[in-house]
Amino acid sequence: MLLLKQSSAALLVAGNTSPVLHNSRFTYSSQSFTMSNLHKPLTSSSGKFNPVLACSALSVPCSSHETSPISEDKHVHGVSEIIVGVLGGGQLGRMLCQAASQMAIKVKILDPSENCSASALAYSHMVDSFDDSSTVEEFAKRCDVLTVEIEHVDVETLEKLEKEGVDCQPKASTIRIIQDKYMQKVHFSQHGIPLPEFMEINDFDDAKRAGELFGYPLMIKSKRLAYDGRGNAVAKSQDGLSSAVIALGGTNRGLYVEKWAPFVKELAVIVARGRDGSMVCYPVVETIHRDNICHIVKAPADVPWKINKLATDVAQKAVGSLEGAGVFAVELFLTEDGQILLNEVAPRPHNSGHQTIESCYTSQFEQHLRAVVGLPLGDSSMRTPASIMYNILGEDDGEAGFKLAHRLIARAMCVPGVSVHWYDKPEMRKQRKMGHITLVGRSMGVLEQRLHCITSDQSHKVNETPRVGIIMGSDSDLPVMKDAANILDMFGVAHEVRIVSAHRTPQMMFSYAASAHTRGVQVIIAGAGGAAHLPGMVASLTPLPVIGVPVRATRLDGVDSLLSIVQMPRGVPVATVAINNATNAALLAVRMLGISDPDLVSRMSQYQEDMREENMVKGEKLEREGWELYLNQ
Amino acid sequence: MLLLKQSSAALLVAGNTSPVLHNSRFTYSSQSFTMSNLHKPLTSSSGKFNPVLACSALSVPCSSHETSPISEDKHVHGVSEIIVGVLGGGQLGRMLCQAASQMAIKVKILDPSENCSASALAYSHMVDSFDDSSTVEEFAKRCDVLTVEIEHVDVETLEKLEKEGVDCQPKASTIRIIQDKYMQKVHFSQHGIPLPEFMEINDFDDAKRAGELFGYPLMIKSKRLAYDGRGNAVAKSQDGLSSAVIALGGTNRGLYVEKWAPFVKELAVIVARGRDGSMVCYPVVETIHRDNICHIVKAPADVPWKINKLATDVAQKAVGSLEGAGVFAVELFLTEDGQILLNEVAPRPHNSGHQTIESCYTSQFEQHLRAVVGLPLGDSSMRTPASIMYNILGEDDGEAGFKLAHRLIARAMCVPGVSVHWYDKPEMRKQRKMGHITLVGRSMGVLEQRLHCITSDQSHKVNETPRVGIIMGSDSDLPVMKDAANILDMFGVAHEVRIVSAHRTPQMMFSYAASAHTRGVQVIIAGAGGAAHLPGMVASLTPLPVIGVPVRATRLDGVDSLLSIVQMPRGVPVATVAINNATNAALLAVRMLGISDPDLVSRMSQYQEDMREENMVKGEKLEREGWELYLNQ
Repeated sequence: MLLLKQSSAALLVAGNTSPVLHNSRFTYSSQSFTMSNLHKPLTSSSGKFNPVLACSALSVPCSSHETSPISEDKHVHGVSEIIVGVLGGGQLGRMLCQAASQMAIKVKILDPSENCSASALAYSHMVDSFDDSSTVEEFAKRCDVLTVEIEHVDVETLEKLEKEGVDCQPKASTIRIIQDKYMQKVHFSQHGIPLPEFMEINDFDDAKRAGELFGYPLMIKSKRLAYDGRGNAVAKSQDGLSSAVIALGGTNRGLYVEKWAPFVKELAVIVARGRDGSMVCYPVVETIHRDNICHIVKAPADVPWKINKLATDVAQKAVGSLEGAGVFAVELFLTEDGQILLNEVAPRPHNSGHQTIESCYTSQFEQHLRAVVGLPLGDSSMRTPASIMYNILGEDDGEAGFKLAHRLIARAMCVPGVSVHWYDKPEMRKQRKMGHITLVGRSMGVLEQRLHCITSDQSHKVNETPRVGIIMGSDSDLPVMKDAANILDMFGVAHEVRIVSAHRTPQMMFSYAASAHTRGVQVIIAGAGGAAHLPGMVASLTPLPVIGVPVRATRLDGVDSLLSIVQMPRGVPVATVAINNATNAALLAVRMLGISDPDLVSRMSQYQEDMREENMVKGEKLEREGWELYLNQ
Repeated sequence: MLLLKQSSAALLVAGNTSPVLHNSRFTYSSQSFTMSNLHKPLTSSSGKFNPVLACSALSVPCSSHETSPISEDKHVHGVSEIIVGVLGGGQLGRMLCQAASQMAIKVKILDPSENCSASALAYSHMVDSFDDSSTVEEFAKRCDVLTVEIEHVDVETLEKLEKEGVDCQPKASTIRIIQDKYMQKVHFSQHGIPLPEFMEINDFDDAKRAGELFGYPLMIKSKRLAYDGRGNAVAKSQDGLSSAVIALGGTNRGLYVEKWAPFVKELAVIVARGRDGSMVCYPVVETIHRDNICHIVKAPADVPWKINKLATDVAQKAVGSLEGAGVFAVELFLTEDGQILLNEVAPRPHNSGHQTIESCYTSQFEQHLRAVVGLPLGDSSMRTPASIMYNILGEDDGEAGFKLAHRLIARAMCVPGVSVHWYDKPEMRKQRKMGHITLVGRSMGVLEQRLHCITSDQSHKVNETPRVGIIMGSDSDLPVMKDAANILDMFGVAHEVRIVSAHRTPQMMFSYAASAHTRGVQVIIAGAGGAAHLPGMVASLTPLPVIGVPVRATRLDGVDSLLSIVQMPRGVPVATVAINNATNAALLAVRMLGISDPDLVSRMSQYQEDMREENMVKGEKLEREGWELYLNQ
């Protein structure tokens, strides 16, 4: 259960007890991994099966030393000595090299551009086309496993090499399916993956028929070499049809049409598969595109749990229909009626997974290396509650663009929890992906505010957002509730104090409760007297923990408040403290925040220690002076 | 306040309102940074002052575009174009290069070993001695700023170069002080930093006098070229004195003695200083040495808050007495009587800061680069509650050692939250630092258990540790408390169920409550009936949030339990729920865990949504069927 618990993605699937994913996280601690690995042999540089390379990193944890299949005469230095060959040396290749450098795994790249992003960081760079048969063959000879950072490669050669025993991960069959978007659609529909209706168009009449069939707007796409929106055209009506087709180079270029998907959000799931077939899914993210280019990625996506689960299931099923090890990015549409439709799949690390470098236990790049090399897959769950990836796209050509990018970076570096990635591309072009920044923090609301400060040139305005909201039904509760504010000040916990009445300002109460957690508030302390409905009402409107403070009213000594706050029906919990004891409410809030804040735990322990000492002192005084004198002071 | 809040280290100092640290996190958003930077000019490769390089990354966030001092004719591509020269190319240099690659900052290294750790990742590697004057001069010409990853360099040359305008960070004066351990001790004692008594020994009689003065065991150290325990010798008594002195090469080698520090723990604090003098401190860590070599680092250190604060203050004061930008590692002793004594300082990234790569928002390596290049310092606070760094030390020479290291790595890779760093050193030697692994997770207890599984070859035994502890005073409470377990199962939250009575098994109650949070338990749910003392007692013994469930006893309808649980004195909070409502207790626990677990928040929102739907359905049924039929079913 360990990893299932730790991985939100895995948890999702744990629900429907998918055997695949169940196995996925455990095979490593069972003999079966070695077995399953043996009939998917890795090839050594010489192209011959090399059991040491294949098993070294895997068998040891899965068996005692006695049964370890490591041959005594061969040794592996470090993590693995498998040489990974990557077709393509763009920013994805660059970040693969960065992940590899930590484990000292050697990555060779094949890319025609001498100073491509990955060149400076690769173990070696073969400057030549990854689309030329003899070159790819030559390159493959120098690697133990062949993988890609771009799918537009010479797949015929890959298929030929596979037959010769070259180890390609993912498999050439996968690249072939993905390369042709139409073939991809056919493949996934044959495997029962939900996707927008589509049809091939061989001439203009086909296009018109499609328009009549699917209605407008109509999405027209070229089958091949389409990425970042290139190769897509939208016809708003039949009049716009011909111009759209022409824009894509005419029907003989190889086109197909898709029924317009009325999506409310675009989602993406990174799925990783190991050499043994085990799979792990990353948390579902929301991708926001600008001019068809990925602009912002939010992790995790703010969608209902059921959508989360559905998206993960679809993504896993889609990848399950493809062959080979590595990470796959599955792009999805969420429609108004809560459907998940597959948009397309990339058989490699992807822009929608960049934030995993900072926000997950294992980045998509380390995961891809683990997968293709044959190491156990890492934990894909998030280690920070929220993360935003923002692409640094060229805003202008040449120096002007560089200057604008540099200013954005300079602003970003002033903001806490921000990491800057610069791809070191020699040329700056408008809309080109030059780098990205990642923000990680305790809530999406906080990160959105910080990103706004960066993009709007107001980094200096980034300020502390309250972690605790202290609210009360009336200002008459303030003399009691102020104790909570004092305690939080003492522990250095940022907070806000508001008057929010369930009876006098119900709308305000509603909006406060509903928006608190997206604003970054983590705990709500609600004080109320008499028929105290505020804590319970708020608790029913927020997923945050709500602490209720019964405030003693003029009559009934506060018992009425206590009972109306504590006796909540099943399903709506309120953490109730003693009558008028706002001090304990704040201490409780600090303990709750301490769950993920070791600094607060140590402060709380100190507070408890000081309290004990204080009592010891009193006790000694009583013992020293006797009770009479003690009382008469 | 933003960063002060975010940084536990900074928080510590916020208490004593140190102006230095206050400024430290804000200078970047004020014009003053540019100012302060201008009289600490950076030099360009040509050796001449280059305002663009000096200000580019700094001024923009600190001023509107109108007042930006970026000259219109020069542009910076990316983060910074300052070329960083590093003397030394070991694993520290390697990890500096890894941090630099993300920001595409160019790092050149000077190291005599052709295949040193950093060589493959550096922008360029000058294969030559960093202890040779002309070489260092030649190297300096090719860099904009000069820094070190080892302090045993040719400091005379650095001082000469500084006079010629070469930009060294930290300053040569700092290297000179640190190089000579005796001079270092003198320097810090002159600056009022607490440290063990010490004295120079020029002959054997000095040594004897020192023994009489300080007593035995007596620590004898050579002044120079001492690291990883080399250059230290302990004399248990006067008889052992001569052999110890001889072991260190005799008194004319340059020795001094230190009074034995009876420490209970060794602590370390990484302190970073920017070019503008601003400082940030990393959380205090505990370092555990084996044979004088750093073996394990635990972050944060498990010490009382006051010790935490004291250690940070001492570290900050020590670094404050040294010149130049960069990160500094301050090694400290914690004595039995709660004193903090300075052991020594390293003017560079340090083994005690490796875990910052995974556990802090800004790693010590990125921080060092930010500091020496003149970028704003990053957030030094932890982004994971707990972290352990474990050094992979050579256990044997040659292939045997490689095999043992590889087996450790293979086991580590099966464990979630583990990152493996391999330094790619060509030679394996006993006790040599070949790599390290970092474990990050929700509590030190969980990580210690995982590390034990790795080192004892039981990775397959790593299992899920409970996040919630459900305890009750008697098995008669179980029929009520089982509801909590059911809810937690529904949300996939690992938990344990125990019978722990405040009255029948007080010792067990005590040990359970006191150990829960170190075992990884994050929330305790305590159910009790009658005179219900369990929740309050447990709350007084743990820093964790405790949820109290009043269980209805045979008499008084549970009101006695409710009042005895909720009416706690100030200082000891118990989150009380309705009588017998263990369901709400578990839902409250889930909400608390959701503070740092977005997956649980989304599950909770779904639970609330489903609850609403359920009620809607009932309402529609009532409307459809009328109340009579509805009631009569």
